[in-house]
Amino acid sequence: MRDNDLKKLLEKMTLKEKISQLIQLTPHFFKGSGKITGPLASLNIDEGVVSNSGSVLGASGASEIVNIQKKFLEENRLGIPLLFMADIIHGYKTIFPVPLAIGCSWDLKLAEKSAEIAAKEASAAGIHVTFSPMVDLVRDPRWGRVMESTGEDPYLNSEFAKAFTRGYQGSDLSEDVSRLAACVKHFAGYGAVEGGRDYNTVDMSELQLREYYLPSYKAAIDEGAEMVMTSFNTVAGVPSTGNEWLMKDVLRDEWGFEGVVISDWGAVKELIPHGVAKDEKEAAYKAILVGVDIEMMTSTYVQHLEELVKENKIKESIINDAVLRILRLKNKLGLFERPYRGANEVLEKQVLLCQQHRNEARNLATKSTVLLKNTGVLPLKITQKVALIGPFAENRDILGPWSWLGSKDDVVTLGEGLKTKAHDSFLFIAKGCDIEDSTEEEWIQAKQAIKQADVIVLALGENSDMSGEAGSRGNIKLPDAQLQLIKKVKQYKKPIVVILFNGRPLDLHGVIENADAILEAWFPGTEGGNALADLLYGDENPSGKLTMSFPYSAGQIPVYYNCFNTGRPKDVQDAQERYVSQYLDIPNEPLFPFGYGLSYTTFQYTDAKLSKVNFTTNETLAVSVRVTNTGAMSGEEIVQLYIRDIIGDVARPLKELKGFKKVFLNPGESKIVTFEITEKHLKYHHQNLNFKSDSGDFIAFIGPNSKDLIALPFRFEK
Amino acid sequence: MRDNDLKKLLEKMTLKEKISQLIQLTPHFFKGSGKITGPLASLNIDEGVVSNSGSVLGASGASEIVNIQKKFLEENRLGIPLLFMADIIHGYKTIFPVPLAIGCSWDLKLAEKSAEIAAKEASAAGIHVTFSPMVDLVRDPRWGRVMESTGEDPYLNSEFAKAFTRGYQGSDLSEDVSRLAACVKHFAGYGAVEGGRDYNTVDMSELQLREYYLPSYKAAIDEGAEMVMTSFNTVAGVPSTGNEWLMKDVLRDEWGFEGVVISDWGAVKELIPHGVAKDEKEAAYKAILVGVDIEMMTSTYVQHLEELVKENKIKESIINDAVLRILRLKNKLGLFERPYRGANEVLEKQVLLCQQHRNEARNLATKSTVLLKNTGVLPLKITQKVALIGPFAENRDILGPWSWLGSKDDVVTLGEGLKTKAHDSFLFIAKGCDIEDSTEEEWIQAKQAIKQADVIVLALGENSDMSGEAGSRGNIKLPDAQLQLIKKVKQYKKPIVVILFNGRPLDLHGVIENADAILEAWFPGTEGGNALADLLYGDENPSGKLTMSFPYSAGQIPVYYNCFNTGRPKDVQDAQERYVSQYLDIPNEPLFPFGYGLSYTTFQYTDAKLSKVNFTTNETLAVSVRVTNTGAMSGEEIVQLYIRDIIGDVARPLKELKGFKKVFLNPGESKIVTFEITEKHLKYHHQNLNFKSDSGDFIAFIGPNSKDLIALPFRFEK
Repeated sequence: MRDNDLKKLLEKMTLKEKISQLIQLTPHFFKGSGKITGPLASLNIDEGVVSNSGSVLGASGASEIVNIQKKFLEENRLGIPLLFMADIIHGYKTIFPVPLAIGCSWDLKLAEKSAEIAAKEASAAGIHVTFSPMVDLVRDPRWGRVMESTGEDPYLNSEFAKAFTRGYQGSDLSEDVSRLAACVKHFAGYGAVEGGRDYNTVDMSELQLREYYLPSYKAAIDEGAEMVMTSFNTVAGVPSTGNEWLMKDVLRDEWGFEGVVISDWGAVKELIPHGVAKDEKEAAYKAILVGVDIEMMTSTYVQHLEELVKENKIKESIINDAVLRILRLKNKLGLFERPYRGANEVLEKQVLLCQQHRNEARNLATKSTVLLKNTGVLPLKITQKVALIGPFAENRDILGPWSWLGSKDDVVTLGEGLKTKAHDSFLFIAKGCDIEDSTEEEWIQAKQAIKQADVIVLALGENSDMSGEAGSRGNIKLPDAQLQLIKKVKQYKKPIVVILFNGRPLDLHGVIENADAILEAWFPGTEGGNALADLLYGDENPSGKLTMSFPYSAGQIPVYYNCFNTGRPKDVQDAQERYVSQYLDIPNEPLFPFGYGLSYTTFQYTDAKLSKVNFTTNETLAVSVRVTNTGAMSGEEIVQLYIRDIIGDVARPLKELKGFKKVFLNPGESKIVTFEITEKHLKYHHQNLNFKSDSGDFIAFIGPNSKDLIALPFRFEK
Repeated sequence: MRDNDLKKLLEKMTLKEKISQLIQLTPHFFKGSGKITGPLASLNIDEGVVSNSGSVLGASGASEIVNIQKKFLEENRLGIPLLFMADIIHGYKTIFPVPLAIGCSWDLKLAEKSAEIAAKEASAAGIHVTFSPMVDLVRDPRWGRVMESTGEDPYLNSEFAKAFTRGYQGSDLSEDVSRLAACVKHFAGYGAVEGGRDYNTVDMSELQLREYYLPSYKAAIDEGAEMVMTSFNTVAGVPSTGNEWLMKDVLRDEWGFEGVVISDWGAVKELIPHGVAKDEKEAAYKAILVGVDIEMMTSTYVQHLEELVKENKIKESIINDAVLRILRLKNKLGLFERPYRGANEVLEKQVLLCQQHRNEARNLATKSTVLLKNTGVLPLKITQKVALIGPFAENRDILGPWSWLGSKDDVVTLGEGLKTKAHDSFLFIAKGCDIEDSTEEEWIQAKQAIKQADVIVLALGENSDMSGEAGSRGNIKLPDAQLQLIKKVKQYKKPIVVILFNGRPLDLHGVIENADAILEAWFPGTEGGNALADLLYGDENPSGKLTMSFPYSAGQIPVYYNCFNTGRPKDVQDAQERYVSQYLDIPNEPLFPFGYGLSYTTFQYTDAKLSKVNFTTNETLAVSVRVTNTGAMSGEEIVQLYIRDIIGDVARPLKELKGFKKVFLNPGESKIVTFEITEKHLKYHHQNLNFKSDSGDFIAFIGPNSKDLIALPFRFEK
């Protein structure tokens, strides 16, 4: 449909029909679901609203969606199809590792591929829009939703935001029905909830918001993300969903975003408990005025917008604008011509969990796993007798939070993975303890397994309810039952390999001292067990690197690599000095820094150099380093470039990631890795919030992680 | 001297002389101290600078100060006397409880008195200015300097800021030589250092800064504080000491502050490590431009200001302004006429640690102690045999950080205090363990004591180096040696009274479960042992209440009472609901809330009422409650008034302290306590940062602490 036709359609709509477009409901409200009465009462809406509503949240399956759409269109006066949206966060049926794990792959192509596959499966199941990517910058591992983010760095998050958006949307959303529209979330700053407590207050300076938190949303939008979701939190005292500065001044006016904005679940009505709207009418008023087009799962718009228009409190044109944005998205998805779009029961059966998708999931799980420690016990030898102990030994709960339609039945557990490698008589499996408690019987069985083994693989972690939305924790250590298990296992003086399944950086005290090797597997998804078996036996070589710092303890939070020097930096050469910025009892440094991860081989960095030491606007400064595989196994290394701006108009971070490259090297092989620095890499927000570069001295850092870096000073003159 | 004479004096000064006025040095630089050579070299300055310098940091004693001033004036061309400044934070020789403890007294008169006494002693010792009050709002107990603040509430901190300022300065600083000029610090926001790590980054929205952090500085300035000290931290990316918006726009232009601004120790030069000045010259340039008049202990001004003037980078008038402010302060203190001012060796001997001052310190220590738990074991009976155990049983380290000239020799320890009450044969004292470690011998002695006793008083805590400046800690529990001691003592199944000596709120797990009573004594000062003996034996009744929340654990930080409702508040009636703002493993609530404290008697709140339910501008709303002493002992109760603004232009806190009154009641006695609410209590900063009230619904809360409150709704119409 041409845009003009959409406008004509809009003109035909009654005010009631228009307002109904703005509500989003779950499938239970719709005919064909058989559950319509109760939900209607709970929102105090009638079938007239439902039959003119604009979109559906969380329907799935070609059959169900076609059914709902068909019945809906039979009754809809103007034949405006429903938009079907859903939370497809890290896979639809084939579940990929959680996004924090995907971040640790530093692999934009694989990330894009995972989104493409999720789109392929979900679109065949009839879905049009996914509430992804989640690109919130995160620094607090107490927050359960860190597992949905790619980590603590604005540049890396932005790159992943773009990759996921490309993967979901492809190059032509209208033509390619195997794609989904992407909805970037949660705008804005949701990752900075105070105390790591979900839904809590967010407060920071506009400088910090613009410099660190906003870039990843902007990146997704610039990449073409069709939708934006508001966040639950306040920004400078005002909830995002009613925040005029954020939603209008920044998002619409400054960034020129013309797509659809949707509230998070219930967030419009939550303006009341937030204390910025006295009732639903005022909540509706504030949200529509700042350009929130779709209200998810509350009904303040359908209850009150008509009244507000009639009282001249809002102009009907504001509603028209919102509806037009929704119609345009429907049109862009081709729904007027093809209301079922990709929904296809035959294709659905073919693609869901097909071998190719499983292979991609296995590959990404392999690349997402981070080797945190290895004294040489890994990789295991096929001749070793292995005791696989722990609550995750045969646990199917490794898909992670927000895996929605992922089924535990489809999971390859760690035990199943190992069985494909190790002979039965070389593998002894016992639970040892449960996630949060233990029985004597469990330990007795574990002892039997341990006694027969040469090496112990301890599969530990947090179950998926312990992180994810509303999964905040004040204690970020492993549960005590598991820490006790390690201690007991340690008594047998056999090598211990710990595999961690979890959705947040943990305080690993109690683990790190007792383990000879640690593999951080996160929640690795459907093919987790196979990927980990490959890694344990050296059929694959770990290459993941952390994208979120592992704190020394909860008392060190927040800890992140791109922090500031302060006026009194701690000088490691002079540790006796009291009056420096430090804790008396714990280090300033995290247990494992951003960018950190080991390999079964070793990489040497030599010949680091700059193409020049002075450069100017419109020039390019090349930074290069020779990376050599000095070990005995092929492997992939993630080479990282950081820059420090020594003196700024405002204090600048100690280092900022500005580039990374993955390089595969056979034993003895070396490659030169080159990055190009231009003026854009040196721009930052000044006191007056202008984003620009300054002339001055800088340091380029190149190396394997944010800590172990080669420094190359240079000067930029404008 | 008339102001015009000061201007004439300024005209006579050479540029070099003017610039030298702006440096502050320690006494080692001055003749009469015999230490001049080394320090000069370290700052690369010559005696010419010293002989024209403006002020001295940390000299003490009438003899020393008169000596330095005398020799100085003999050589100073224009006879401009030195200003003597020092850190007199909670007493000069007679040490009062640390400010956080004084806050817990909620007693503005006693706080004022403590400052008056500190001024009396210090002025007799020749000092003119104290770097106090410290009024930083604090929410993070990891930060060691919380002990220097009165706590987490902007209103309470403001009231104390005024009380201390009045106490130091009196009503006429010129006439009354027993007073000191006050220097309010640390401007601004130093209490919000990230991660509680001293000197670390501070970042918050301007809304938060203005609404919560700035009021206490403003209060001290409005009360007449003569000086302001810059903070070490950044504010929105720019260190305070070079922050034009903060130091000029807010402090000078908006607030009209005309007094002297001094940098914190070395803070001008620290603009370099902060990364906003490339060298000392730029540091000097930035600091002088924003109106930092005195540079403490670095020499960038004397090294570079002359050059900057000659290069026309700064106008000499800027230096003139700074010098004139310093000369005016000297003149206000009468130093041109009386260069030794209060310095008086005879008076010094009379007043330092005189009995009256000790009595006041004892009284304030009594009022500052907070009874956190009591199952009935307190007060002790004189017939009970008492084992006093623990590293603080006879520890003289109870003055607390920043007690400078306070001497441990003058301290009355807890043991000494108890000996004045209990007969020798009823008191058995043993250390049990040290602060951070223990020996078997210590425990053997403790066992002997415990076996003979009816009740055990455990004196535990942190030594004074564990808090205070640069005393940040990631772990806020008592050291393990002491937690072990409690466990061992507990085995004897005798009542345990814990007395805590510490400078920060602690995670009291390990203590609270094992103690029958807990007295939070903080660092109680010189007379601590006597005050605690009075309290333990019921000669005094505890009345202190916390002014900083005690967190459940470090993983709950920050936790403070005046937080926000969020969009998804945790409903205690529906604790099964996952999707609310909460931790899964720990409560949202602190272990002990703001305003909390017990008494040996009980108080009942009845007949709470409002004078009306609607009021308007220029009217007064009276809130009253009848408080009755329903116990058997006389006691003092701190009655607290909070207000909640239900709906605002921005989200408003769940409650805000707006008034408090201390009321003394004999057993059975009751009094009606009344507060008056006017429009000013309802004003807050809006999105546009305007400070004003709105019409709307409010709740007045009245009660004994921030949690247990009677709610009285009212409406305000403009």
